[in-house]
Amino acid sequence: LVSALANELTRLVGAEHIVTDALARFSTDASEAHGVAGHADAAVMPGSAQEVADVLAWCYAHDVAVVPRGGGSGYVGGAVPVDGGAVIALERLTAIRELAPLQWRAHVEAGLSTRHVQRLARENGLYYAPDPGAAEQSQIGGNVATNAGGPHAFKYGVTGAWVTGLEVAVAPGELIEVGGPTRKDVGGYDLRSLLIGSEGTLGVVTAVWLKLLPAPEQRYPLAAMCADARHAGEAIAAVFGSGVVPSAMEFLDAHTLELAGPPFPDAPSATGVLVIAEADGTGPAAAAARGELLEALREHATSVHAPTNSAEIAALWRWRDEVSLRVVAQRGGKLSEDVAVPVDRLVELLEGLTEIGTRHGLDTCSWGHAGDGNVHATFLVRRDRPEEVARAERAAHELFALTVRLGGAVSGEHGLGVVKRGALKLQWDEKARELHAAVKAAFDPKGLLNPGKKDAFSGPADRASA
Amino acid sequence: LVSALANELTRLVGAEHIVTDALARFSTDASEAHGVAGHADAAVMPGSAQEVADVLAWCYAHDVAVVPRGGGSGYVGGAVPVDGGAVIALERLTAIRELAPLQWRAHVEAGLSTRHVQRLARENGLYYAPDPGAAEQSQIGGNVATNAGGPHAFKYGVTGAWVTGLEVAVAPGELIEVGGPTRKDVGGYDLRSLLIGSEGTLGVVTAVWLKLLPAPEQRYPLAAMCADARHAGEAIAAVFGSGVVPSAMEFLDAHTLELAGPPFPDAPSATGVLVIAEADGTGPAAAAARGELLEALREHATSVHAPTNSAEIAALWRWRDEVSLRVVAQRGGKLSEDVAVPVDRLVELLEGLTEIGTRHGLDTCSWGHAGDGNVHATFLVRRDRPEEVARAERAAHELFALTVRLGGAVSGEHGLGVVKRGALKLQWDEKARELHAAVKAAFDPKGLLNPGKKDAFSGPADRASA
Repeated sequence: LVSALANELTRLVGAEHIVTDALARFSTDASEAHGVAGHADAAVMPGSAQEVADVLAWCYAHDVAVVPRGGGSGYVGGAVPVDGGAVIALERLTAIRELAPLQWRAHVEAGLSTRHVQRLARENGLYYAPDPGAAEQSQIGGNVATNAGGPHAFKYGVTGAWVTGLEVAVAPGELIEVGGPTRKDVGGYDLRSLLIGSEGTLGVVTAVWLKLLPAPEQRYPLAAMCADARHAGEAIAAVFGSGVVPSAMEFLDAHTLELAGPPFPDAPSATGVLVIAEADGTGPAAAAARGELLEALREHATSVHAPTNSAEIAALWRWRDEVSLRVVAQRGGKLSEDVAVPVDRLVELLEGLTEIGTRHGLDTCSWGHAGDGNVHATFLVRRDRPEEVARAERAAHELFALTVRLGGAVSGEHGLGVVKRGALKLQWDEKARELHAAVKAAFDPKGLLNPGKKDAFSGPADRASA
Repeated sequence: LVSALANELTRLVGAEHIVTDALARFSTDASEAHGVAGHADAAVMPGSAQEVADVLAWCYAHDVAVVPRGGGSGYVGGAVPVDGGAVIALERLTAIRELAPLQWRAHVEAGLSTRHVQRLARENGLYYAPDPGAAEQSQIGGNVATNAGGPHAFKYGVTGAWVTGLEVAVAPGELIEVGGPTRKDVGGYDLRSLLIGSEGTLGVVTAVWLKLLPAPEQRYPLAAMCADARHAGEAIAAVFGSGVVPSAMEFLDAHTLELAGPPFPDAPSATGVLVIAEADGTGPAAAAARGELLEALREHATSVHAPTNSAEIAALWRWRDEVSLRVVAQRGGKLSEDVAVPVDRLVELLEGLTEIGTRHGLDTCSWGHAGDGNVHATFLVRRDRPEEVARAERAAHELFALTVRLGGAVSGEHGLGVVKRGALKLQWDEKARELHAAVKAAFDPKGLLNPGKKDAFSGPADRASA
């Protein structure tokens, strides 16, 4: 079958767009620290949406699993071919099908990088706000498949809030459109939203209609150093109470600051928790909002860094973007879990995380999207020490249980993939998970679309085997 | 079976909360002008979410259809028991389960009126923006079931954008929770969004978690009279080009103005199209945005009404809220279709609507949410003239076809219900509709949840029989 697969895919997309050896780069993604690795039988780079559907059609007819791949920056193994099959890499689908700046919208193919989409908007006076952590590497199709977030999701929503339509290759191998350039549509069931965040298990996104916004003229981040998690919690509450909707509200704990280095020149030595809240808008409105945020934060902080020139502002956000890489560089690996809780339970979550990490003897830190209660709970590990990784996995499972006790969600950004197998059991009761599975069966009766991912039933016991 | 039904429902909810005769008020909704009427075998008013699930369980076990009913303000017959069965009216589920102003959120039961939710937010310094047309009458559960919109959806999104979680009674009769108070959640498939807008055909919404926003301090609507649809289109484009995101952008054509009466004292005689754009925000920011909108509109308008005092502002919006009622009062009935197109096709749609109405000899007018390309295309009819209604139905079908040719959606706000049976065929290809039907089968294998509604396959020929 593998040679038939290669022959047929060659016929469909051309010999230069198929890889049948040297498949290493299609075997892993950013979940490597979890020890997730797969093996593809082939990888194929279709040149058009129709070719994606054609490849899917052949694979579906021949019972070959299909693993869609965007930029490979996911943390839960969503792009890893854990059970073989064909990887469909979307990297050649980079056309901008329509750009309508005067109507605040764009129609782009799935393989365009997130950064490219952001830049395309900016160069036309517009704004695409979602800013997940690896924007150079990640692709808009992957962002849709995971419903990616980022710091600015607090005010502007996650990827799905920007999507008015999708073109998707679905089983047994054809293209459908759900939504389009129209901003409101309640005719059929909301299959668009259902596909968003489905991690390639219901279909392969080939193109996306985006609605954009006029670019805010100014942004003013304020970085407030707070004595500890409780003071940080008070600062966050004060921002909520200020009446200003900040464009982002982040936090980074003391150990993160220690590992990632100073967030700005002359930063105070990091002994507490840094809270970053940002005001944006037109010039005077942004300045007024900045003033109110500053007032709200000051009362609960030991110091506030409040840059107003664009170079300093850009430097602060660049540092924030690099936190994850800087932290991982310390020990070569990390398990970073992206749990989310109601914002009034954030401090309890952070305190619980510290306790769990200490009890398991793990080097633990956390940062994330405070306003959304979304924490990147991180255990530093050396990937060549399986015992350490296993300990971190056990700690992560305890963290999921704590999150659910606090009324939260086991994943705020990354999804389930294979890494979080079993975690949804903690959060959703059986009936909801049955409906989840029934939706999967409706879209993918043969179970060939990204097998093993986003499974609502396989248990925590399966987790280590990923 | 009917007496078994009555006996059993009495046991479940108490004799005082079941109606088995005098069922008229449960037999119709605002779709009466389309001639839609049904007959319920019983209507039941459960007193808790668990009672809703219990009633559903009994009905499901005994093959009795279930028709959920909110405020009955829908235009497509979504709440009408067209095939008998039990109506479940949510009007007793009015508890506010949690109100957390400092976390900008609320947890309310499905039967709370939209106006009550709006007021609850306002009284706590917060804002719930969705403002569908019958806020006193409609209920939040019905708003979720239809994904209701309104003028302020342009900036703030439709109902679904405000919902972080749902409690839903699903077949064969139990409660599930999808989402909750947490603002980000990508663990399971987005069943929350799938249920939003599903018109009671996948489950019965019993409670809703809402995320709210701080209330904008000021709002400044600007009402610009434009010579005709083309000038109105230019005014709308100028607003898009201004860089300001208006909180609402409405239009009303000349005939609507004629029928609804003057929008404000000293309004110029209505010979054109009125465009209303509104600036909102904190005081100075709203004032600055108002100035920019005024400049953008002026160039394309013959006059601009720009009230700054709150009484005049409230009067303008109150008039706008009443337009639908004022228009229907003229002849006793109207067929109002809520198609939506990409905003750059709006003028073509309006010109096409005029042509269709004229050709069918119908008294035609339109208004709606210009920024979203969402038009309430209205044919005035007398309900006691079936031939006139039938002609309007044919005109509506042509309008749907035109909308789809322009890249639009057959429903931007109302949904399919029974009135728009067959319309989705024009918009979605067969495969997408198969997936729609497969989702329905996954949630409702017996087809007992709001039967005949939101059907993707029954054809235009079925339309008249509704």
